[in-house]
Amino acid sequence: MRKSSNPLNAIALATLIGAWALATTVAQAADGLPSWNDGRAKQSITGFVKRVTTPGGADFVPVAERVAVFDNDGTLWGEQPMYVQLVFALERVKALAPQHPEWKDKEPFASLLKGDLKGALAGGEAALVQITMATHAGMTTEEFEKIVRDWITGARHPGTGRRYTEMVYRPMLELLRYLRVNGFKTFIVSGGGIDFMRPWAERVYGIPPEQVIGSTGKLRFELREGKPVLVKLPELNFVDDNVGKPVGIQMHVGRRPLLAFGNSDGDLQMLQWTAGGGGARFMGLVHHTDAAREFAYDRTSSIGRLDKALDEARAKGWTVVDMKHDWKIIYPIERK
Amino acid sequence: MRKSSNPLNAIALATLIGAWALATTVAQAADGLPSWNDGRAKQSITGFVKRVTTPGGADFVPVAERVAVFDNDGTLWGEQPMYVQLVFALERVKALAPQHPEWKDKEPFASLLKGDLKGALAGGEAALVQITMATHAGMTTEEFEKIVRDWITGARHPGTGRRYTEMVYRPMLELLRYLRVNGFKTFIVSGGGIDFMRPWAERVYGIPPEQVIGSTGKLRFELREGKPVLVKLPELNFVDDNVGKPVGIQMHVGRRPLLAFGNSDGDLQMLQWTAGGGGARFMGLVHHTDAAREFAYDRTSSIGRLDKALDEARAKGWTVVDMKHDWKIIYPIERK
Repeated sequence: MRKSSNPLNAIALATLIGAWALATTVAQAADGLPSWNDGRAKQSITGFVKRVTTPGGADFVPVAERVAVFDNDGTLWGEQPMYVQLVFALERVKALAPQHPEWKDKEPFASLLKGDLKGALAGGEAALVQITMATHAGMTTEEFEKIVRDWITGARHPGTGRRYTEMVYRPMLELLRYLRVNGFKTFIVSGGGIDFMRPWAERVYGIPPEQVIGSTGKLRFELREGKPVLVKLPELNFVDDNVGKPVGIQMHVGRRPLLAFGNSDGDLQMLQWTAGGGGARFMGLVHHTDAAREFAYDRTSSIGRLDKALDEARAKGWTVVDMKHDWKIIYPIERK
Repeated sequence: MRKSSNPLNAIALATLIGAWALATTVAQAADGLPSWNDGRAKQSITGFVKRVTTPGGADFVPVAERVAVFDNDGTLWGEQPMYVQLVFALERVKALAPQHPEWKDKEPFASLLKGDLKGALAGGEAALVQITMATHAGMTTEEFEKIVRDWITGARHPGTGRRYTEMVYRPMLELLRYLRVNGFKTFIVSGGGIDFMRPWAERVYGIPPEQVIGSTGKLRFELREGKPVLVKLPELNFVDDNVGKPVGIQMHVGRRPLLAFGNSDGDLQMLQWTAGGGGARFMGLVHHTDAAREFAYDRTSSIGRLDKALDEARAKGWTVVDMKHDWKIIYPIERK
């Protein structure tokens, strides 16, 4: 909270805050999660939040320790038929091709430029890293931020024709806000690139850049004609996936989460790490069960595979959100 | 801000917040920086904060972008005659020696255990890294946190006999709070170890672990008999000093600071990066000029050398705080 140095402004501000606190609380009390059907998933969320926020209760947790972490792809927005960041990278390869005549004879670029995606990705992880480095490095952080902002404003999902930022999950937006209203600090913990998410995460999710954790490349500080810049180098720094997620959380947050939400086996260690903290903890999985309104996939999907984590969730009583039955609405977003 | 789900509690809370906002603002209006003498340094701080927080003003900055970064050693607490973290490491070598009989014949440990500090540190940076790895790795993050907490509770400065956490600078504690009251988010950006600062930074500085940026070692996620742990590995991950400071800020915060405070050449790039953001920015240096109350050192000191950054500060009109003349009080701390 902040205040002006003028006491009169402070009185006005305090009055406003009071009115707002009351109005917001009444609205929340009516229903903080209107897009969620009443059912076990919703009850497990609201029951947990009530337990950890009730002063004097056995499970009460001080506000400073209310850390909530969310995977992004498949948890907060869609990841089918392809990770959005990969769509971005492939389109950037095409945009950059005129500056790289050598790509015509160099894989994975040659196949990509011929429209042969399968051939381009045949090189597996090495091909992906090459594509990522060619499109996510070689410019300053500010230049890259502008590239992402411009792209995400115009790009549209091939299936729905809607902007990707309009294909975030409305029930999860409600959950993020519901948690913040209840004193939680919300973080993204994604295998995706930190610099790809930060330019729009605040506007779309209400999550500021300092609460976005993701994979990173190395950076180099330089003075260019006296002007300091950070140059994105074509070298991986940290992969924030699988066993990397608890590491990323420790590096950036330094506290064990109280609540974690994911949707795939890449989130399993983050959920285990959260569960291992003891006391009241919430572990949740979004299960993609809705072929009609979104996509249905789990154990055998090449993107967002949910197999071991689903077994562990069931064995340990973690919350599995069934998109088809638990969500009244999937899209649209409420904020643009 | 958080609210209870009970509207009556919300009313009570809103009333409390209102009263507190008013009381705090009146106290701040009277003087937010009572330990600072009136002078150019104090005026440059309050003038800057007024400019960026005045709604409608040409230099107004929204709350979300009010990022303030502070070096730790020599800026928020003392660093003479030796970095506190190095004192910790040396004492840990002695404590761990019984478990390491091989150290008797192995430098830098052999010299250290004989009490020959100069001999031990003759190996330069390599010796320091060896000492750090031997004392900061090989345990879980939770075990290390407890070691630091226990140590910092008991350890005392050889000169004053006071706890190190009582030798933080009172004017800087006031400044941190003054900035937070004015909507800034305060971060530590230190060359010191992130895991060494986090266990006490919240209690002493009011800075939560997620706002502490520092040097890091690599971590490994493991399940030990089903219980997840993060093991501190004897391998450097990131050095948050010099050119590393802007990189650390970008990795953790993802926004350019509005205000940066340091005290040595190790902070120069952080100050340059801040200044390079354009618009109203504040760059400050603590200049150790008070041999009677603290220490006096700058251009030729082996610890906290302030040479190039002092020249650049003077050339560019950054604020140089003269401890002797600008600070009424250096210690004691106000919070324990």
